[in-house]
Amino acid sequence: MLHHVVTFSWKKDITDEQVESFHKALDAISASIPQVVEFRYGRDLALKPGIGDYAISAIFEDVPAFRAYLVHPDHVRLVEEFISVMSESYSSIQFEFA
Amino acid sequence: MLHHVVTFSWKKDITDEQVESFHKALDAISASIPQVVEFRYGRDLALKPGIGDYAISAIFEDVPAFRAYLVHPDHVRLVEEFISVMSESYSSIQFEFA
Repeated sequence: MLHHVVTFSWKKDITDEQVESFHKALDAISASIPQVVEFRYGRDLALKPGIGDYAISAIFEDVPAFRAYLVHPDHVRLVEEFISVMSESYSSIQFEFA
Repeated sequence: MLHHVVTFSWKKDITDEQVESFHKALDAISASIPQVVEFRYGRDLALKPGIGDYAISAIFEDVPAFRAYLVHPDHVRLVEEFISVMSESYSSIQFEFA
């Protein structure tokens, strides 16, 4: 299986409304993209402030399934309409697990 | 439930041996810290190079369980002996999910 982990730090001027819209777009993606096995995401609880604002944790069967996810129109739109607009920085890591 | 997500970018001079030792330390922690419900971690597969080297995805019952994990001696040692030595930067995000 493949675990896809993304952590975001937002730009200073990003509003709660924008984050809420992003959250809803992720709600839609978790249902619309068939390769997604598990899809969890959310705002940081600020338990350890200052090192990230939002995270996505997703599971795929394998690398081909993940690559299909990346090019799916709904994911491409997510990147164009939200991630590239809102992110100051982000990390995106994929690792395999048994 | 609480999802704890950490993404790391290593310093330039970090060796494979150091990463392997870190990986083994995480193997031990997933068994030694009772509050850990699920603990997955691994090296980035470089499918999308350049935005992170390693990730941890862990699940806890709730915030108190996560706080107990943070102060557990094995986690404190992990931070002192590996994370603070190896990381150029990292993001650490906790979010709640149903």
